[in-house]
Amino acid sequence: MKNKKLSAQKSRTPNQMWGGHYAEGPSAIMAEINASVGFDQRLYAQDIRASQAHAEMLAAQGILTPKDKNAIVKGLDTIRKEIESGKFKFSASLEDVHMNIESRLRELIGDAAGRLHTARSRNDQVATDFRLWLRDALDQIDPALQDLQAALIDKADKHTATIMPGFTHMQAAQPVTFGHHLLAYVEMLGRDRARFADCRKRTNEMPLGAAALAGTGFPIDRAHTAKALGFAKPMDNSMDAVSARDFALEFLADAAILGTHLSRLAEEITLWAAPAFNFVELSEAFTSGSSIMPQKRNPDAAELVRGKTGRLLGNFTALATTIKGLALTYAKDMQEDKEPVFDSADTLRLTISAMAGMVRDMTANPVAMKAALAAGFITATDLADWLVRAANIPFRDAHHLTGKIVRLAEERGCTLGELKLADMQKIDKRITKDIFSVLDPENAVKSRTSFGGTAPANVKKAVASARKRFL
Amino acid sequence: MKNKKLSAQKSRTPNQMWGGHYAEGPSAIMAEINASVGFDQRLYAQDIRASQAHAEMLAAQGILTPKDKNAIVKGLDTIRKEIESGKFKFSASLEDVHMNIESRLRELIGDAAGRLHTARSRNDQVATDFRLWLRDALDQIDPALQDLQAALIDKADKHTATIMPGFTHMQAAQPVTFGHHLLAYVEMLGRDRARFADCRKRTNEMPLGAAALAGTGFPIDRAHTAKALGFAKPMDNSMDAVSARDFALEFLADAAILGTHLSRLAEEITLWAAPAFNFVELSEAFTSGSSIMPQKRNPDAAELVRGKTGRLLGNFTALATTIKGLALTYAKDMQEDKEPVFDSADTLRLTISAMAGMVRDMTANPVAMKAALAAGFITATDLADWLVRAANIPFRDAHHLTGKIVRLAEERGCTLGELKLADMQKIDKRITKDIFSVLDPENAVKSRTSFGGTAPANVKKAVASARKRFL
Amino acid sequence: MKNKKLSAQKSRTPNQMWGGHYAEGPSAIMAEINASVGFDQRLYAQDIRASQAHAEMLAAQGILTPKDKNAIVKGLDTIRKEIESGKFKFSASLEDVHMNIESRLRELIGDAAGRLHTARSRNDQVATDFRLWLRDALDQIDPALQDLQAALIDKADKHTATIMPGFTHMQAAQPVTFGHHLLAYVEMLGRDRARFADCRKRTNEMPLGAAALAGTGFPIDRAHTAKALGFAKPMDNSMDAVSARDFALEFLADAAILGTHLSRLAEEITLWAAPAFNFVELSEAFTSGSSIMPQKRNPDAAELVRGKTGRLLGNFTALATTIKGLALTYAKDMQEDKEPVFDSADTLRLTISAMAGMVRDMTANPVAMKAALAAGFITATDLADWLVRAANIPFRDAHHLTGKIVRLAEERGCTLGELKLADMQKIDKRITKDIFSVLDPENAVKSRTSFGGTAPANVKKAVASARKRFL
Amino acid sequence: MKNKKLSAQKSRTPNQMWGGHYAEGPSAIMAEINASVGFDQRLYAQDIRASQAHAEMLAAQGILTPKDKNAIVKGLDTIRKEIESGKFKFSASLEDVHMNIESRLRELIGDAAGRLHTARSRNDQVATDFRLWLRDALDQIDPALQDLQAALIDKADKHTATIMPGFTHMQAAQPVTFGHHLLAYVEMLGRDRARFADCRKRTNEMPLGAAALAGTGFPIDRAHTAKALGFAKPMDNSMDAVSARDFALEFLADAAILGTHLSRLAEEITLWAAPAFNFVELSEAFTSGSSIMPQKRNPDAAELVRGKTGRLLGNFTALATTIKGLALTYAKDMQEDKEPVFDSADTLRLTISAMAGMVRDMTANPVAMKAALAAGFITATDLADWLVRAANIPFRDAHHLTGKIVRLAEERGCTLGELKLADMQKIDKRITKDIFSVLDPENAVKSRTSFGGTAPANVKKAVASARKRFL
Repeated sequence: MKNKKLSAQKSRTPNQMWGGHYAEGPSAIMAEINASVGFDQRLYAQDIRASQAHAEMLAAQGILTPKDKNAIVKGLDTIRKEIESGKFKFSASLEDVHMNIESRLRELIGDAAGRLHTARSRNDQVATDFRLWLRDALDQIDPALQDLQAALIDKADKHTATIMPGFTHMQAAQPVTFGHHLLAYVEMLGRDRARFADCRKRTNEMPLGAAALAGTGFPIDRAHTAKALGFAKPMDNSMDAVSARDFALEFLADAAILGTHLSRLAEEITLWAAPAFNFVELSEAFTSGSSIMPQKRNPDAAELVRGKTGRLLGNFTALATTIKGLALTYAKDMQEDKEPVFDSADTLRLTISAMAGMVRDMTANPVAMKAALAAGFITATDLADWLVRAANIPFRDAHHLTGKIVRLAEERGCTLGELKLADMQKIDKRITKDIFSVLDPENAVKSRTSFGGTAPANVKKAVASARKRFL
Repeated sequence: MKNKKLSAQKSRTPNQMWGGHYAEGPSAIMAEINASVGFDQRLYAQDIRASQAHAEMLAAQGILTPKDKNAIVKGLDTIRKEIESGKFKFSASLEDVHMNIESRLRELIGDAAGRLHTARSRNDQVATDFRLWLRDALDQIDPALQDLQAALIDKADKHTATIMPGFTHMQAAQPVTFGHHLLAYVEMLGRDRARFADCRKRTNEMPLGAAALAGTGFPIDRAHTAKALGFAKPMDNSMDAVSARDFALEFLADAAILGTHLSRLAEEITLWAAPAFNFVELSEAFTSGSSIMPQKRNPDAAELVRGKTGRLLGNFTALATTIKGLALTYAKDMQEDKEPVFDSADTLRLTISAMAGMVRDMTANPVAMKAALAAGFITATDLADWLVRAANIPFRDAHHLTGKIVRLAEERGCTLGELKLADMQKIDKRITKDIFSVLDPENAVKSRTSFGGTAPANVKKAVASARKRFL
Repeated sequence: MKNKKLSAQKSRTPNQMWGGHYAEGPSAIMAEINASVGFDQRLYAQDIRASQAHAEMLAAQGILTPKDKNAIVKGLDTIRKEIESGKFKFSASLEDVHMNIESRLRELIGDAAGRLHTARSRNDQVATDFRLWLRDALDQIDPALQDLQAALIDKADKHTATIMPGFTHMQAAQPVTFGHHLLAYVEMLGRDRARFADCRKRTNEMPLGAAALAGTGFPIDRAHTAKALGFAKPMDNSMDAVSARDFALEFLADAAILGTHLSRLAEEITLWAAPAFNFVELSEAFTSGSSIMPQKRNPDAAELVRGKTGRLLGNFTALATTIKGLALTYAKDMQEDKEPVFDSADTLRLTISAMAGMVRDMTANPVAMKAALAAGFITATDLADWLVRAANIPFRDAHHLTGKIVRLAEERGCTLGELKLADMQKIDKRITKDIFSVLDPENAVKSRTSFGGTAPANVKKAVASARKRFL
Repeated sequence: MKNKKLSAQKSRTPNQMWGGHYAEGPSAIMAEINASVGFDQRLYAQDIRASQAHAEMLAAQGILTPKDKNAIVKGLDTIRKEIESGKFKFSASLEDVHMNIESRLRELIGDAAGRLHTARSRNDQVATDFRLWLRDALDQIDPALQDLQAALIDKADKHTATIMPGFTHMQAAQPVTFGHHLLAYVEMLGRDRARFADCRKRTNEMPLGAAALAGTGFPIDRAHTAKALGFAKPMDNSMDAVSARDFALEFLADAAILGTHLSRLAEEITLWAAPAFNFVELSEAFTSGSSIMPQKRNPDAAELVRGKTGRLLGNFTALATTIKGLALTYAKDMQEDKEPVFDSADTLRLTISAMAGMVRDMTANPVAMKAALAAGFITATDLADWLVRAANIPFRDAHHLTGKIVRLAEERGCTLGELKLADMQKIDKRITKDIFSVLDPENAVKSRTSFGGTAPANVKKAVASARKRFL
């Protein structure tokens, strides 16, 4: 449940979905729909960090006395410890994390607490906290993705020469190596990391100092606060600063795109682990068994990763729809911005690390992979290419001749390599025994030496290049 | 946060978003991604109800002894009480609500607990529980929507003759009554209720007895269980029974469509309450104030209702994406089906009741509504219609003449009703003094007597009709 | 390109994507963004039908003379013929289909054309046309879906006893029959048809007579027009009549849900046709070959059906987002309502008929299906059930014993049926030779006789029931 | 209609939605669902450019003879001219743009045409064309966005000191300048441009040379082709090269995010132009009139821009759903990638230029803006800030006092500036006459001098900075 509220959790037994709601009256309804502390308490560390930086700046500018500043900074340290030790009591009646902390600060240090809110408002405060939170999340997503790349690269390294069918339309099309196949995902994840890095740039600009919406008359120094908080710069326009949520949308979009990549790999793992393919064996750690069929390993983790793509896409849809058509500046609709971001970040944490674990634990089955090459005349393209190269036959004509030869093999019930030279020469006399050099899948793979191609030598270099570029 | 897991909640302080995850190793990752009891515990009542009905049927069919059956039914009653009194300890290591309950049942009644699972599997069990849960939710949504309709109808009843501008393109177009405007939403909500009722029909079919996917060899009586649980019928195909989630998708779609209606009303309330319009005053209960501007009432509840449309649409997107392309029958992806449904149901509970409260508490400001009629030559259509009716001028020509008269009034800086007859006759001599009867907004409204039109007498009848049709 | 405009098509060569746009100035931009005739011309037949019914009613009410009415009706007949014979020139400068037709009517019959628009406006006119169009589309979708059901039922009829693995998690779980599997989709499509039928009810209410938004003062008879056009009733509230688009949203949601069903079947067909499974052979008609590998049949149609799920979901998202937060009554945003509906209807036309063709043409390969049963100890559940039934062992314990026996078979490298009785009795002495009766997949299938189960006798009955319920 | 097919257009009159489809049989259905030339012909220029570069490279590598190469390059030039002059006949039976062009090339130059396809396949060809097309589109979107920024900056420049209410919750909160408000959008668009630039980087990598999926054995030089086509580099992995569509998803996401910005500005323009606000007057060019109310200007263009946000979001949803769960490498589902990208690019072309036109033509109404400041005690924050600054009262206490003073003004029915000093001093004696300096909105605005704030002097600098950073 996305929308779990503290008060709700306490006041109702689990079964009373709409429990006694009407009896409680309007104030109960409003309290529940309005309060955000049930989820925004996750911003506590960022809220405290930003408040401390704000207080330091106010003091440096002479707006706060050193004494007040010290009391504030220390009081906030205390609150952080209270929260992290589980002693802090968040109260739904104080609505949000900001008011919960400020109220506690007043209990701890008295009037000076009131001065902390000088030259800021909840509008710039929450935007700042949220950006800090997302920046922290991005800084954890990047190494997680890197770790998944490392798992893939390591596995690819072991299988630079392990031959398997490359599929189009789920039909074997050309032989490739397993390592080559895995490296395709390393590239996708590399672009995902670049996208998140670009998102971080746009997230890392500071709203603080925009106050409610118009800026402030206090002689604040936004550059000072920005520097203290690691922001690249204070945002240039106060109305934009409190209204913009495109940083959150960009994160959600990037997460959804990454989700499509993870779902593709998850789909493949599900298929590879199916008895019909039997290309890999998954570890017990990432599968579930059946008490009744102990040999069975259901690829639960892969399926969950695939299924969670829906959630990632739904979160982007949700926030984009919420923001659509909102007049500037702040409107309460924008309180809906946090849950999808938290949920997508949590989902990535789980799916990326589960995928890294699955890949690391996965054992390839080269025998089954090789067996799957037998079907489908998988070197037909190589045969056609040989006709072009060795006999200077135009590509389209070579295709036509290849078709004839494949049909012959099909009739004979043999592989291309098992055909007789004489039979092939009846189809085209330009064919020589040299053709057999390309009809074996292993030779076919070896021949794909163009940059980015699947020849084992290439894949070896690609592994090294990937290590250098990504790890 | 959608994805809150029990173990996660316990083992980490709030700030450790990715806390120590890698150190914990694969099993911790898998436990967290795999366990569903953090959210599916909300199915406990339905799970118990369905298990009791299943046990009764097994006993009636001679598959369970009466003694075992009695122990099971009583044990499940005990567990229900434990859960509702907060004593039950859900354990993430038991993965889901079903295993938590079954495990506790074994503690309570011993071996007989093991016989409850005869002739069923988790696949048909969870599908049954989930359908029961959604049916219960639908049975609470309908009266909530009816209550909102009642609030709108009551308010409309008070304002069958309160005149306000009807807008197109946010420009005043023709005068209507406030009651008429509110009844438009009563109609929309009536269709929403009908949609949910249709969804209930398709939800109310029983998967139980499909077992894992193929049915069972035990001589069960599915009609018996279906009757006991209030299902219209057992589902006809066992593979469909465990695979289908279109009932959940239909609910999410209906919720998203309802969300667009609520968002439109919320948008209007936000505008009506804005000083620029000042058509209504909202109550303190559904607005937030500002310590600094005590006269201010921010329409927070309306904005939240509007903003939550995103979440409703996102939930449908999420599940539709998850289901897309899934081979039959069960796959773990489908564990993602519950959270969006729970979240949309929770959201509807809040938004519908908040909206009902807002509408009930809302005070219309007929003076401001009337003042807004002055601008915009709002009876221009009536003038044109008069030209057609009284002077038999083709509609398009009447439009042209009307344009001339409006332009004249604009030049003179007066309303249409303040123009002189002679001046109008210069534009077209067929105009008589009878024209003034339609130039007053009140008369204009009174004249709209076509079925469904805004004439106060019509609106009065429409209120009565709405009461009869919906309440 | 969704948004193809007539003028745009003419004035630019294909490559000038942004061609000379700025040079053309504001009017060109506005003309292009504003005109809808490029797509709404598809409403021409409905527009003419509704106008004729409106004219008849106006005449019956004495608002139009019989002469004018006759001229209008005849003129509109002429226009219909002009359009259907390709002679009609739609002009983007006349913006939409309504103005194009009205303008031509004026050319054909002069002043009387101007009287047609009496007591209506473009707002109620377009809503009426659009509902008529969708109703027509729904009346074509239903038999198309029925035809697909017929194809599935016919194929199921041939395979009521053809055994194949039933999968969970893409792993063989229990044997089922191919007919049973296909009938699962018949059930899903049955619910889809019911959803569209429910949508039709809510679509089939008439906005006409709501005029711009407030109703009209002309003494019209909306019941008369509704009857003539086959509408169940005139809508009860004029503002709702011109503002509501939930009928379109409901259609788009139903189409998206149907899309998930089609995508699941398409995914399965893609897999079944893959050499790894080889369960079915698709016809040349619905596959694409390769000049180079003539034996290859790529399941293009199935993949396109699966891929088009995205478009169906995107269309719902698009319109729901557009409608979100729109104040009543008409706003130009609502011009965006038609293209997604047209596109989803077109997509369904193609995907449903392609799927029906694929299913009809598809040849099952029972040998490969049977071979796939060998792996996976697919009768393990039956073994466990036997232990419960024949030896009164609690289900969970029976599961445990089954696990032991399966592990034994795995060690011996044999199927369950090939185990020796003595070996099994070492695991539990209550086992008798009667156990062998359930270890064969064929027997297992036969035993699943619970209602909705996969026993061939059941499937035969299910085929008959499906014919009766759906065809 | 997204899915308009050539053959379909020809063979059916507009009304035959499902026209004779079944009669035509499977091949007609397959032809229609399979052919893409109805939309992918838009890639013709990119296809020709890429083919010419490929031929040049093949020749440079000695794989093609110079003679063949020259024939190919010249033949392709001819075809480009044929297409651009409208003489080229695209044929649906040749399925896609690539086969249409290749087939014509064979007509023009004979056998040499067959050699062009050496060392490539349709898989890498279409991915290359599509990336080139998107790169071209991005290169047109950037200056269009820049032009919209220029329009906003120019307008802001005129209104650096024009005071209006700044809103939160649609309630006047603090005075700002119109220029400041407009610059908020300049910042948003700046980030949109940066996002598109980042997307361009990831789009601008070359798949060509990946061949079907595995690379090729021909001694091609991918760096040569990449350079010729302006790609930053050839892609590193051949399987990724033909499978990846994240560049398209990223574009669609960026377009959807931009759409939310445009929708917010469009919403504001719609409100500002409404009589209730009357803050701006729109030009005739971007509004539609009413023959009956000639003074009326419906903000059609703004509403269309707002409404089209749905389409942009729908397109992202569509493609992300399509890609979800697709196994590598090519599957026909991916044919669904182009239409959403074309549609979003077309939509941006229209909406960005319409918005630029609207902004340029828009006339501000400073009198109405100023009048709107009277209501709402808009300088209450300034009063509170003065209490803090001048009287060293803690912020929260100052808020409380301000509340009292505002309530007093409300009772008196006057503005804050019209209160008497003595009355205020009764509330707090620390108040001096200096307080009046901040109670006037103009002074309030002037005081907001923090970086990014709304003081006219700041806004002037912000205009200059925006010109420098963006134009």
